[in-house]
Amino acid sequence: MKYCSECGSETEKRIPEGDNRERDCCKGCDLIHYTNPKIIVGTIPVKDESILLCKRAIEPRYGKWTLPGGFLENGETVSQGAFRETLEETNTEVEMGELYAIFNVPQINQVYMLYLAKVIKDDFSATTESLEVEFFNEANIPWEELAFPFVPIALKNVFADMKKNEFPLTTHTIERRK
Amino acid sequence: MKYCSECGSETEKRIPEGDNRERDCCKGCDLIHYTNPKIIVGTIPVKDESILLCKRAIEPRYGKWTLPGGFLENGETVSQGAFRETLEETNTEVEMGELYAIFNVPQINQVYMLYLAKVIKDDFSATTESLEVEFFNEANIPWEELAFPFVPIALKNVFADMKKNEFPLTTHTIERRK
Repeated sequence: MKYCSECGSETEKRIPEGDNRERDCCKGCDLIHYTNPKIIVGTIPVKDESILLCKRAIEPRYGKWTLPGGFLENGETVSQGAFRETLEETNTEVEMGELYAIFNVPQINQVYMLYLAKVIKDDFSATTESLEVEFFNEANIPWEELAFPFVPIALKNVFADMKKNEFPLTTHTIERRK
Repeated sequence: MKYCSECGSETEKRIPEGDNRERDCCKGCDLIHYTNPKIIVGTIPVKDESILLCKRAIEPRYGKWTLPGGFLENGETVSQGAFRETLEETNTEVEMGELYAIFNVPQINQVYMLYLAKVIKDDFSATTESLEVEFFNEANIPWEELAFPFVPIALKNVFADMKKNEFPLTTHTIERRK
């Protein structure tokens, strides 16, 4: 941040009175601009023993496979956001289940919240965000072609949990290579 | 938002190409400024059958009682943020437990994530953010003096769960009066 979004004056980084962190503060109107982590919501769309994955049609990781998900939008609940992102990336309306995994990615100020979901229709298809949308079982997951570090962790967990038919919430922290 | 935080030009609200929501877009450098929900992290600090509450020393709801919590900061995991907020508001380092409740408050673009925590030291005290810090059991909770709608919901749930000694994660959506 270089300029105040409210008055257009220059901003500076300093610790405001009563605070203990550096913030972007306006030199003109004194407004403090806080930035905080963002929530990424998504699903693990399941049918029988298979999971619906999307081949990314957008950067980053164009052409790699991922679980449907994206930024939670203002005005949404986390579950609504996960449902919407799944619809936008797979064209199918899933039946939402329980929160299954939380991934902290503190180096990029993101928190992922992944829900279990059931694929209940056969209308899934490619979208503007996904080149292909396809079911994979444990044996044919493209392990070397997954988009983000959280994807193989979530997939391995869910295939293991399917065998036990128990799906406890787990929390993970991903440290990215510097 | 009135001005671009990167170049200082005026911004306008419009739907960017390929998007389906109105965003603040810069008329000068074309940058799109996204705003997304924020995460509030907190704890339910328990000792025996009692819960540690804080009397707010800051607005909003100055003088009302609440559970310790606040905005997740960049670079933190949700659990780290909940621990830090509890320390800042009660002066005690709790032993963090499991995620216990999620509260969506979509009208103000907030998601609360509340963790169970054990109070393991007797060093809790008032802070710059809390006028008083005090244990309450179910019988003497100041039900009429609680700060926010999520507080009585979380407290009633946890006192009920204590009797069963089972603490399943629950998710709630709070619709605020318009």
